[in-house]
Amino acid sequence: MQYPEPIAKLIESYMKLPGIGSKTATRLAFFTIDMPADDVTDFAKALIAAKRDLHYCSICGNITEDDPCDICQDRQRDQSTILVVEYPKDIMTLERMHEYQGLYHVLQGVLSPIDGKGPEDLNIASLLKRLQNEAVKEVIIATNATPEGEATATYLSRLIKPAGIKVTRLAHGLSVGSDIEYADEMTLLKAVEGRQEI
Amino acid sequence: MQYPEPIAKLIESYMKLPGIGSKTATRLAFFTIDMPADDVTDFAKALIAAKRDLHYCSICGNITEDDPCDICQDRQRDQSTILVVEYPKDIMTLERMHEYQGLYHVLQGVLSPIDGKGPEDLNIASLLKRLQNEAVKEVIIATNATPEGEATATYLSRLIKPAGIKVTRLAHGLSVGSDIEYADEMTLLKAVEGRQEI
Repeated sequence: MQYPEPIAKLIESYMKLPGIGSKTATRLAFFTIDMPADDVTDFAKALIAAKRDLHYCSICGNITEDDPCDICQDRQRDQSTILVVEYPKDIMTLERMHEYQGLYHVLQGVLSPIDGKGPEDLNIASLLKRLQNEAVKEVIIATNATPEGEATATYLSRLIKPAGIKVTRLAHGLSVGSDIEYADEMTLLKAVEGRQEI
Repeated sequence: MQYPEPIAKLIESYMKLPGIGSKTATRLAFFTIDMPADDVTDFAKALIAAKRDLHYCSICGNITEDDPCDICQDRQRDQSTILVVEYPKDIMTLERMHEYQGLYHVLQGVLSPIDGKGPEDLNIASLLKRLQNEAVKEVIIATNATPEGEATATYLSRLIKPAGIKVTRLAHGLSVGSDIEYADEMTLLKAVEGRQEI
């Protein structure tokens, strides 16, 4: 005996999401049947709308409804600085600090030979094109503090520096409010290396 | 800065699913934008169809497109035995063994005072009604081997036995192919208690 077709199809759809296997998909599908009808309709509409209305900004690669995105269109922002991130969601995180006023560029990942991800798979060509055309003085690289993130930062730095543009990297060190006792060795090392005069 | 509305709404919908918090929902939403358009459309259609076309069988409480469900409508099945499960998905699991030929009844949960779930929250009244009207000779209780499942089995047994109907419980013991070394004490205890002559 098989599941009735409507639930079998829903399980199949849930299984296409990352990190969701057949057991979780089944649990989610049965949960869906017990959800309020309005919530299910909203969910379906949100899926369609997100796929239909969102695109990548043709300049920076951010997720946006309009092209170019709001940030690229905003002439009030500092046009001389580009902050490079791995994914669009990193932009939202950085914008929440209400401090950075420059532009962004989304790589859509990091260099990762294990996953077969080389420079041609990232938005690097479009970044170099921007550096040629725009009056950029500084590129801040904000890839994650992972081995792949570090390698990508080094790669970009070697590519960009010869053009006479300043390349910086976000500081690594202790989290604000954190306890030295619980910091890992690499973080402590970076904190000592990056020590500043007070 | 907020996420563009289409993605914010999708994140909100994903967060309504059990076990999915804001970080996972955000990851799933960004993943959705990169999915093939057909997959997203199928997903939305599957959500709508599952909610619209599936119902609980008015007799046994199983998930079904037609009411009564295929199993309740099948006069070839043994009408004198009802196997009681916690959830509809348990029926699929049991049907996969291609051995049981009787009917089913879905409780939609187990007695759980901690979660405020009493007898009136389960499909117990409809089970007792079936026992009055149908020619049932045996009720097999297949709730899970959890404290709540055991308590529910005992409760049902006390309720049904006085009507002169045989009440049985699925056997507990070692899994087939399993190693005694790795069995927990409760399972071993049940295996010894339920030992059979060979």
